[in-house]
Amino acid sequence: MTASAAASINRQIRLASRPAGLPTNENWRLTEEAVPAASELADGELLVKTLALSLDPAMRGWMNEGKSYIPPVGIDEVMRAGGIGRVVASKHPAFAVGDEVSAILGVQEFARFGANDARRAALFKIDRRLGTATQWLNVLGMPGMTAYFGLLDVGQPKAGNTVVVSGAAGAVGQTVGQLAKIKGCRVVGIAGGKAKCDWVVSELGFDACIDYKAGPSAVRDGLKQSCPDGVDVYFDNVGGEILDLVLTRLARGARIVICGAISQYNNESGTAVAGPKNYLSLLVNRARMEGMVVFDYAARYPEAIAELAGYLADGRMKSKEDVVTGGVSVFPEALLKLFSGENFGKLVLEVDG
Amino acid sequence: MTASAAASINRQIRLASRPAGLPTNENWRLTEEAVPAASELADGELLVKTLALSLDPAMRGWMNEGKSYIPPVGIDEVMRAGGIGRVVASKHPAFAVGDEVSAILGVQEFARFGANDARRAALFKIDRRLGTATQWLNVLGMPGMTAYFGLLDVGQPKAGNTVVVSGAAGAVGQTVGQLAKIKGCRVVGIAGGKAKCDWVVSELGFDACIDYKAGPSAVRDGLKQSCPDGVDVYFDNVGGEILDLVLTRLARGARIVICGAISQYNNESGTAVAGPKNYLSLLVNRARMEGMVVFDYAARYPEAIAELAGYLADGRMKSKEDVVTGGVSVFPEALLKLFSGENFGKLVLEVDG
Repeated sequence: MTASAAASINRQIRLASRPAGLPTNENWRLTEEAVPAASELADGELLVKTLALSLDPAMRGWMNEGKSYIPPVGIDEVMRAGGIGRVVASKHPAFAVGDEVSAILGVQEFARFGANDARRAALFKIDRRLGTATQWLNVLGMPGMTAYFGLLDVGQPKAGNTVVVSGAAGAVGQTVGQLAKIKGCRVVGIAGGKAKCDWVVSELGFDACIDYKAGPSAVRDGLKQSCPDGVDVYFDNVGGEILDLVLTRLARGARIVICGAISQYNNESGTAVAGPKNYLSLLVNRARMEGMVVFDYAARYPEAIAELAGYLADGRMKSKEDVVTGGVSVFPEALLKLFSGENFGKLVLEVDG
Repeated sequence: MTASAAASINRQIRLASRPAGLPTNENWRLTEEAVPAASELADGELLVKTLALSLDPAMRGWMNEGKSYIPPVGIDEVMRAGGIGRVVASKHPAFAVGDEVSAILGVQEFARFGANDARRAALFKIDRRLGTATQWLNVLGMPGMTAYFGLLDVGQPKAGNTVVVSGAAGAVGQTVGQLAKIKGCRVVGIAGGKAKCDWVVSELGFDACIDYKAGPSAVRDGLKQSCPDGVDVYFDNVGGEILDLVLTRLARGARIVICGAISQYNNESGTAVAGPKNYLSLLVNRARMEGMVVFDYAARYPEAIAELAGYLADGRMKSKEDVVTGGVSVFPEALLKLFSGENFGKLVLEVDG
């Protein structure tokens, strides 16, 4: 296997320019490099073949210049992406050829990790007995970790609370809602389209789901109907108008978890983000709005993975992945599904099935 | 004294209509009523003569229709106001003629309190040894309570933190900043005009003060210069553009206390409030924004009054009141000083010196 890898080509997607608004084909460049031979690896190095990549809303932020929670992807750099891969060559005593790992692989077919590579901190072996490769990118991966720590640590739901989650059928939302149900909360999702709403209610067991595409007052009316005692926890993946509408329905002492704002990521400029004009509801309701970044909880991922894998095993947690095939060359197009809301479940790009 | 009170007239300011934007003379009506004779009081009743009234930004909110943390003032009702008064007639065993009290007196010269009056919960005797009448409306009154619980309970400053407070020379801001200094923080104020800025630095001991009227980039540049390590706690009295600029300078894990938004209270409609477009800085910096309403802390006021009175006594806390004379008839005009930023210190209307 190392021999065939060495003979092949590593196709990569690099950032060619920074987008204004939605990324277009001009922002990307497909490059090819020779895959290093196993014999070229220095002590401590690893070569990993990409099996599947995680496509995430956060990627849009990584394409922008400027200070954020991690540095932006540089122009001409391989686009950053988390994924699942298989070790195809190893000069590291802890990894053997054939091991499966979760790592920041980048949008490429092979990733080489140096002995002192900064990305090594996020590289770990996965246990297929706990979940499939795509589940390791979903419930057991970043989205699951985000849902777990965002909901439990920041949102602090109590049994009987009403929890609202936007992007309910998405990667983070599906786990947030199911976890809140397991913790004894009433759960109301917000998602786009009847199919997604039906799924989170009938398959995932949410108490209700509001279809934000169902009409101009669908969210306002839906919240009023489904949250008669107000919203205790709002897990926000979308920002924009939906955040503003939820702000009008807060219960006393509510907690808003700011996890993302996918509705705002493709505005033409950073200054065009719509601020929540109803934020003074925080004052009236003695409520708080708090941001979270999943990487802060890295030391506690094992705790979350153990608990979530238990729910997957006993059937209390379901997962849905939307797997796009076609390899790294379809990445630019596949990514756009996130922003149109076209994906149904955690969006995954299969690179080598 | 009760005899002369009974012979006189109680002048009152009532809400005639709800303002759009800044209140105008048309929104108010001056009425006169006979002051009840002491003999008219039923058991448990009190008659209080107003000495001084507190003029507060929150009054603007009470004039609006709609759900808030307390019901709006009704049309034709006496405008709500806290104040200091002297008992001029009493059929209540706990109050004697001559006692001074803090109470929701309303904008009127005399206030009668029934035995089961809802306003009685906020009526208590004041101890002049702890502070002057105007200090009882300032450091020892609602502004001081707001500063104390907002800063300490919600803002949770740690020694060495950088604390920024807007409306720094105002009623709440002056106490927030001095209290933060006492707790070992670096304190940066934001205020309008050189005189106010000089005062909070030279008299109150703030480390710096940014004059937001000093030019279009004064706040941006001032924050950069005065908060090189970012802002750990922002106590927000103003909202609007200043809140947005502070959001760009947050330190990791910052706490924003949403106490008020005076820049937004006189917008033409409720929906015209400018939302903080940089709110995603909460995510990047794992920061939180939390609203507070001082009335929630009523059971703990004695604790705050004891601590703050101690600082007044030992000279570590100073207070400044901007006392307007002329009685209740000048209330409509005096209130506007708050929104133009013309007041310097806690705005008080002297009704009977």
